[in-house]
Parts: sequence; C-alpha cells; structure tokens
Amino acid sequence: MRHRRDDLRWNGWGRLEQAFETKGKDEAVWAFVANALGTARLPSTPAPSLEDTTLPASRADAAFVERLAQVTNASRVTTSARERAFHAYGRSYYDLLRLRSGALDHAPDVVVYPESESEVTAVLALAEEARFAVVPFGGGSSVVGGVEASGGPAHAGVLTIDTTRMTRVLDVDGVSRTATIEAGIYGPALEEALSQRGFVLGHFPQSFEHSTLGGWIAARGAGQLSNRYGTVEKLLVAATVATPRGLLTTSAFPASAAGPNLNQIVCGSEGTVGVITKATVKLHPLPEARKIFAFLFKSFDEGVTAVRALVQEEAGAAMMRLSDGEETRFFGSFRHVIEPSRVSEFAEGALGLVGYDQKCVLMVCVEGDAEEVAHKVKRIRGIARSRGGLYVGEGPGKSWWKRRFEMPYLRDPMLDHGVGVDTLETATEWSNVPRLYDAVRLAIRSTLEAEGRRVIVMAHISHSYLDGCSLYFTFIFLRDTAREIAQWKAVKHAASQAIVSHGGTISHHHGVGADHAPYLETEKGALGLDVLAHVRKALDPKGTMNPGKLLGPRS
Amino acid sequence: MRHRRDDLRWNGWGRLEQAFETKGKDEAVWAFVANALGTARLPSTPAPSLEDTTLPASRADAAFVERLAQVTNASRVTTSARERAFHAYGRSYYDLLRLRSGALDHAPDVVVYPESESEVTAVLALAEEARFAVVPFGGGSSVVGGVEASGGPAHAGVLTIDTTRMTRVLDVDGVSRTATIEAGIYGPALEEALSQRGFVLGHFPQSFEHSTLGGWIAARGAGQLSNRYGTVEKLLVAATVATPRGLLTTSAFPASAAGPNLNQIVCGSEGTVGVITKATVKLHPLPEARKIFAFLFKSFDEGVTAVRALVQEEAGAAMMRLSDGEETRFFGSFRHVIEPSRVSEFAEGALGLVGYDQKCVLMVCVEGDAEEVAHKVKRIRGIARSRGGLYVGEGPGKSWWKRRFEMPYLRDPMLDHGVGVDTLETATEWSNVPRLYDAVRLAIRSTLEAEGRRVIVMAHISHSYLDGCSLYFTFIFLRDTAREIAQWKAVKHAASQAIVSHGGTISHHHGVGADHAPYLETEKGALGLDVLAHVRKALDPKGTMNPGKLLGPRS
Repeated sequence: MRHRRDDLRWNGWGRLEQAFETKGKDEAVWAFVANALGTARLPSTPAPSLEDTTLPASRADAAFVERLAQVTNASRVTTSARERAFHAYGRSYYDLLRLRSGALDHAPDVVVYPESESEVTAVLALAEEARFAVVPFGGGSSVVGGVEASGGPAHAGVLTIDTTRMTRVLDVDGVSRTATIEAGIYGPALEEALSQRGFVLGHFPQSFEHSTLGGWIAARGAGQLSNRYGTVEKLLVAATVATPRGLLTTSAFPASAAGPNLNQIVCGSEGTVGVITKATVKLHPLPEARKIFAFLFKSFDEGVTAVRALVQEEAGAAMMRLSDGEETRFFGSFRHVIEPSRVSEFAEGALGLVGYDQKCVLMVCVEGDAEEVAHKVKRIRGIARSRGGLYVGEGPGKSWWKRRFEMPYLRDPMLDHGVGVDTLETATEWSNVPRLYDAVRLAIRSTLEAEGRRVIVMAHISHSYLDGCSLYFTFIFLRDTAREIAQWKAVKHAASQAIVSHGGTISHHHGVGADHAPYLETEKGALGLDVLAHVRKALDPKGTMNPGKLLGPRS
Repeated sequence: MRHRRDDLRWNGWGRLEQAFETKGKDEAVWAFVANALGTARLPSTPAPSLEDTTLPASRADAAFVERLAQVTNASRVTTSARERAFHAYGRSYYDLLRLRSGALDHAPDVVVYPESESEVTAVLALAEEARFAVVPFGGGSSVVGGVEASGGPAHAGVLTIDTTRMTRVLDVDGVSRTATIEAGIYGPALEEALSQRGFVLGHFPQSFEHSTLGGWIAARGAGQLSNRYGTVEKLLVAATVATPRGLLTTSAFPASAAGPNLNQIVCGSEGTVGVITKATVKLHPLPEARKIFAFLFKSFDEGVTAVRALVQEEAGAAMMRLSDGEETRFFGSFRHVIEPSRVSEFAEGALGLVGYDQKCVLMVCVEGDAEEVAHKVKRIRGIARSRGGLYVGEGPGKSWWKRRFEMPYLRDPMLDHGVGVDTLETATEWSNVPRLYDAVRLAIRSTLEAEGRRVIVMAHISHSYLDGCSLYFTFIFLRDTAREIAQWKAVKHAASQAIVSHGGTISHHHGVGADHAPYLETEKGALGLDVLAHVRKALDPKGTMNPGKLLGPRS
C-alpha cells in the first residue's frame, strides 16, 4: 500500500477510493441510525470541497521556500492549498468539524518532506532561524490535536515536517529480534517488510493503515494485540530524535540501570522535543497460528471480572476486547442491518431466554506457536466459563477482525448526515473500573441529553494489564449544526473532567496533544509538568517544536 | 527480621551474628582459594575495629542537630561514630577497602531517621538552609558508590537521611493487585507483610535481606526472579518523592499515553532528585508451586542459545541463570570443598566422558499455578534438550536457592585473607553477547594479570529478555595491599571502558552512583545527560540531593 498524498482525503479518513462498506444497504443504515437517535430523518450536511474552502495566506516567502528546497529538494517543499489543507489538522471529530467548515483558521505555511536525518536537521535549523514553529507529521491520524499546524505568538509561521518519505528498514537483527527502521514508515509497509523476513512487530492500532512508526512512538500508542506485542513503550528499544540542539540517540539495551530510561522521555513526547527519525523495535516471529473466538457475559461487571482473571492468571491472550451492553447491542444491530440473518435473529431470541438479554461480548485473540495457542485457548475457555462466560464460537471475532481498521471510514458519512461521533479513552486500576466507567458515561450522557438530544454511549475494554485496563468510549449524537464546535467542547470538557477527577488517565493511547493539555496537570501535578517543561527546554530551548501540544500554552 | 543498626556490620556485609557457612571446613576453604589463585598461603589482613578507625570531625553543630531533632525526634538524629561510619559508604569492594583502611575520608556529619513524608520534607528544608548536601540511604547495599556521604565543594556538610523507619504498608488493593508501601521497608519485612495477605512482590536481588523498596527503585534494580515478576521499572506503578521543591507524586495507572511516564524518571534517579518516600507496586498471588531444576551445556555459547530460545519462545521461566565454564567449575569445586561427595566426584568423571568437561550449568526456576508450572517445566525441558541441554535434576538449583542471599557474606572473610573480589554487570542485545563477554573478561584478566597475578574471572547470565540479556562478572584476585585502591581503579576502569565501548550498558541493575558516572556519557550522549541534568534542576535546583552520583561532578 502506497500513501500518495493525492490519493488520501484532505478532510476525512483514509483513501479516496475506499469508503465504509454498507453492501448496498445505505438507506437502511441511515434509517437505523436515525431511529437509534430518536429522529425521523437525518439531515444532509455534506462537506465543502477544497475549492470552496478558504485558507489563511502562507507566510512562507519565496526566499524561505527556496532555502528549504536547497537543503532538501524543490519537489519536496510545497505551499500548495491541498498540501496545506491536508496538514492543517489531525483527524479527530473536532478536526473534521473544522476541516468541513469552509474556512481553515490554521494551516502550515509550508510543508517539507525530508528524506534523511540530516535533511531534518537542516530544516530545523532554517526554521529556527526564520522563527517558524515546526510541527512533525506522520500519518496525521492524531485525534487529540497533536499535529495541528499552530504556532505560538512569537512565531513568524508554521512549517510542517512530513516524515513519510523516511521509510527505509535500516537493519533487522534476527538473533536479537529487533529492527531499526526510519520513523516515517506507515504500518502496512512496515509489517510487509518485516513479514518478508519472517517477523511481525504486532502494533495494530485502529489507525494502523494511516499512521507511522514515529507517530506511534510520539503518541505513546497501543495496538489491538498489545497483550502479546506490548504497547509502544514496551516494544521500543531505542530511538533517534532530531532536536533543535542536535541528535538525541538512545542506546539499544534490553534493560539498564544506568539512570532514567531516555526512551521513556521520547515515548509520549508528541513532537515537542524534536522529530523522531528512526527507531529500534522488538520483533516476534510471524505467528504459526491464530485463534479468535468470543464469549458472552450477562453483564459488563461479570465480563470485567473475567478479563481481569484472564490477565491476572496470565492466560496469554494476544487481545481481549470486552464491549459493554450498549456497544454489543448497537454494533450487533448495525451489522444486522447490513447483513440480515434469520439464524442470528433466532440466536438472539434464544439468548434472551437464558438470561443474556443484556449481553456483553468478549472477543479474544490468541497468536503464536500452534501447540501453545491450543494450550492457551483451552485455558482461556476454562477461566472464562468459570466466570460466567458463554462460548459463542469464532463468528463474531472473525467478522470484527476482517473490518478492524475500517471503523474510521464510517465517521465521514456520519458527518455527511448531521451525525456527530467521537471517541475518548482512559485507563485505571481494576478496583476503580466501575466508578470511572459510570462517571464518564454519565458526563457524556448528561451533557448531550441536556440539549434534549438522544445520545448513544458505548464502551469497551481493549487493553488489559495485571493492575488495570483501558476504557474506550464511543458516543453518537445528533450534531447541533448551529453550534457544533461549542457542543463538542462541552461534552469533551465534561468527559475529560470526569476522567481526571475519577482516577483515570486523560489518555491510555491517544495522547495529549492540544485537546488534553488542559487536563494534564491534574494527573502529573504542577511539579511533574515542570519536569517535562525542563526536559523540553534541554532539547528545544526556543520552543520551536510543536508548540501548544502536550504542555499546552505554557510550552 | 528486624534491622537494628547495632546488629549490623558497619564495615562489611549484613548481620554481625551471621557469617558465611563453611561447615567447619575453614582451613580447606582457604587452602582451596590460595591454590586457585596460584599462591601457597594467603596472608592475614583483618579489618581494624571502629575504635582504631578515624573519622573526619562532624560539621553539624549543636544548633543544627537541635533543629533537626525539633522537626523529627532527638532519638532519631545522631552524630555517633558508629552511625556515621555505618552510613559513610555503601558495600562495594571499593567501599570495603575504604571502610577497612583505618581512616574514613568521608562520613555524614549527621544522620537523621525520619518517620514520615512530612519529616523528610522538613529535614530537606533545614538541610538546604544550612547548605548541607543530603544523601538518601536505605539498606546501604549500593555497590556503585550510590550512598557515599560526599558533598559538593559548595556544601557546608553532609546529612544522611536513613529511610528505614518508614516501613508502613499503607494499602493493599487485592483487586488491582497493587500495594502502596513506605519506601524504607526492607525486603524480608515487605514480603512477610504481603505474604500474610496472600501476595508476593517477587523482587529478590542478592541484597534482598539488606536493601529497601526505595533503594530498589532509586537504583532501578532487578531481582533473581525478574523473568516472572519484572525488574523494578516494570513492577513500579506509582511513587512519591520528597524533593527540595516539594512532593512529586505520580499516578497509579496501568498504562497511559499522557506524555512521558514520570515513574521512569524516578526509577533510576538514585537520590539525585529527592527521597522516595512511598511506592505502589504490582503484586502476584503467592505461588502455588515452584520447581527449580538444572541443565548442563557443553559450552557457554550453547547455553546462551538455549536461554535465548527459552525467553524468545516465551517458555515462562521465573528465572534462568546460566553460569559460564569458569563459574560452573569454581563454585562446583568450592562447594565440593565444603560438602565433599563421592557421588558427585563420580558424576563429574562420567560427564567428562560424554563431552561435558567444559560444562556450563543453567538453573531454571518456574513458579505459579501448579498446572501451569507442570506445563512450563515440560516445555522448558523440551526446548533445552533440543538445544543440547542435559537435564541434571533439582539438586544444583535447590542448593543454590538455599544460599542465594548468602554470597555477600563470603566477601568479608576473603578480604580478611588478602583476597580481592568484585563483581560488575552489564546487558546487551543477544547478537552482541559473545563480543561483550569476551571483551570484558579480557579487560579484567589482562589488567590484573599484567601485575603478574592469577585472576579468576567468572560470568553468568541472570536476566533475559526478548532482545538480550544481562552479563554478570565476578573476579577474584590477590590484593596488592600496598596499592589496593589503585589496583581496583585500574581493573574497574578497564572493565567499564570495555563495557561501554563494546555495546554494553554500564549497569544492568547495580546503578550508576559515583563509580559509573564517568562512563555514562558514552551511552546517554552529552545531550542525553543534559536532559537528565535539566530534570534534576527542575526538582533540586540547588543541587542538594546526593551530589556526585549519577551525573557525576557536573551535578
């Protein structure tokens, strides 16, 4: 899969040629959504074209563009409207609202595509000299305002460094099972290169097809199979960051007591200290076997207890994904609209009779050596059964697996139909899961319902640990087109406040960016934030890198 | 086990009432060691008593002592010679040389035992006001100069904060399987408290009996069962550090993408940013079963390949400990001196006949759920056999297990007999193990042999990871009593230089302290060190905390 910028949506998700597959059931789908939101008909709210969208004038003058071309290449420095619009924002709901507004209030003044570490360094030097802020940009899939092309008040302009021309696999060490790869590589290209050598990295965020290695590290992300392959902080072995003060290169050690681990400063740095140019990551052999199967639980609480038992008893799943009742019901019905089935209708009825009418589905994936997979599947089925889990076979998991990177494609047509959809996520210790789950749902529901609108609030657990788990919320609502940004800000604030005041982290895997920065102090403390500000000062003393992200306006 | 300071050696390891058990074979033991070092008889080099040892005069005047007593308690502020001598150094070979020299060039001017976070904060404030450097001290088992009572040139004195009165278990969360515990608690007390609740932390460094939770975190340590329970960086969930700028408290999240993880800045901070007062750590249930068993390999290379296969195939050992040929032989013979056995003599002969004359022993421990232990043992035996491992049963492992915290007690009598013994350790990626192993052994050997002395250089792997492992070296030599410190410095420098110039970290689990600080820049880079210096500045702007450690004189 190549990622030519011209093949991608500048104001939505992914590839122009790809859309959410409704199998010809478009009309039924929108009738279903309208009904779920308690309205008779959804409005038509299409996005304006690029031609109908105004951009602020570029502040990059010809001389500056010329100098950037001299240290890179004229074909890799651009001020075109499409490139500027493509790089103006990430791909959050808030970003899409702004990209569809007809007038972008932010856009980079110039976009540069370096092809090497030394080109990045040269571009940084020119940007500093010109007092331009620099925004590092990989796949641009941030949903927290992490790549928003905004500078600080002292900046003369904004330069976005697009890293996606830096894609070489520099080294694969089959003995140590590590690979060193340039950070601009997209997920599919990375896994393709590794699979040719018999390995897998195993980092599969939902954004996998449209995000890059460097972005995963910068945002401290987590993939769907994190139980097996680890979140980014665990799979990262070493990194190089081009900072305004030069290259910061961490060493590749399996473990070290030589002071704090600088990888853990790079991981989650969100472009605020420099551009991640390459990284060494841990590999696994391509799995010999994969099993994906599902259980039903009578309540979310029961499902949570089962997931906790499975992870604490180290049953060895690669993924455990537990949907709450609302999510199980909504996506079950949604799928039924697209693929109606008498059999599943009958099964639903039967489940209701045996007490699974409020059912929650848990999907489990196990990967690896075939014999071990068989052993683990057996053990997982035993533990799940002992916790009230009803085994329902491989169907639901397989159907989810096939479409696991496709959900973001549903957002654009939702937006075309006056519907708002956003997600947010957190993590907490097991003992705090019920309290946090209730608080966040209540915050979302009460904010949107106060406007007299019906809202669908769904949640799932997709990452679990010995001591706790993530909680991921999706909410769907009728957009208030007269004040859609204010509507979003209200619900975002209420949910974020609920998270940080009920023992959750402001993000388990999306990151902080601009959107979560106001809530960071509650969890890090003023002194903790000052530590991060000092780290930043060491590497970016002039505040050139990605201003306003992570540490907020104070940076 | 209580740790009254009066019951402990001030100039050696552990408890006064305990010594290395030779089962009445003292004479044979020393004859064996003399023979191994190529000399006829070992000299007698006993340590001077405290009465025969001079200390620098205390610079803590009565008024300062009085003020410290006011914010703590008069019984917990001391300037006694024994307390000052006990806290003068850690317990490295270099420290012991100095503690046995008859004249201490360093000692804290005053020692304070706070009993709460607020007392620590109050003591820090008084120390800053008096321009005293502050050295945090737990068990004092550092072997890298991490608790050396030295100040910087601008300091008016040195105050040591002994944390071992802060030992309360504040919370045990059985659902999240975490415990929050004051950081001054010693290993045995901590595990005893947890075991009463059915849990184990599982951090068992060799210093376990004489080190504390806070020390483990500060030094970024690793325990013998780290394959199961994790190194400190993995088992740490949250921490509170009393810094000169106030309390830094990290939040207890199972994972978070909210910027860099501040726990990873606390872990490995070595007292240079503050005093760790409490921590939240991950627990496991007390293991239902434990199996410990051993294999022999025909060469170290073959053993390394087997350990790598076992960890990369995720066989699930709690510990894998592979000794090289020299270590297998030396400790085998040493044990034979203490516990002679016809059977083992015969077995040795038989092994020689089947090609195991250069044998390396691998000890494996598996812990947990009984059924899972059985499954793992079977799998481990299969993988080890396929890599040339000869199963030799439970004997060697059980005998090691029984004495696994006892080895440091052997050092003091060695020192009494003119023998030097030191250890150092590193970690590297699997593909670099042979090169690093050879380089470090050569550096130690060639430095000491250049003096015309025989040296025994032994090594083992005790911690393994998907991408690499630790390498732990022990070397035993005849002390050059005329210049014993110069002799140590020469070999330490040669070995450290070999480590950092051959792709090893300067420490896998001992830490940096004063001794490794000169070698840190090679692995972190000047910019990396500057990041750490900025972190320090954020939390300890006046450079009060543990000067000279971690960052070296620049701090």
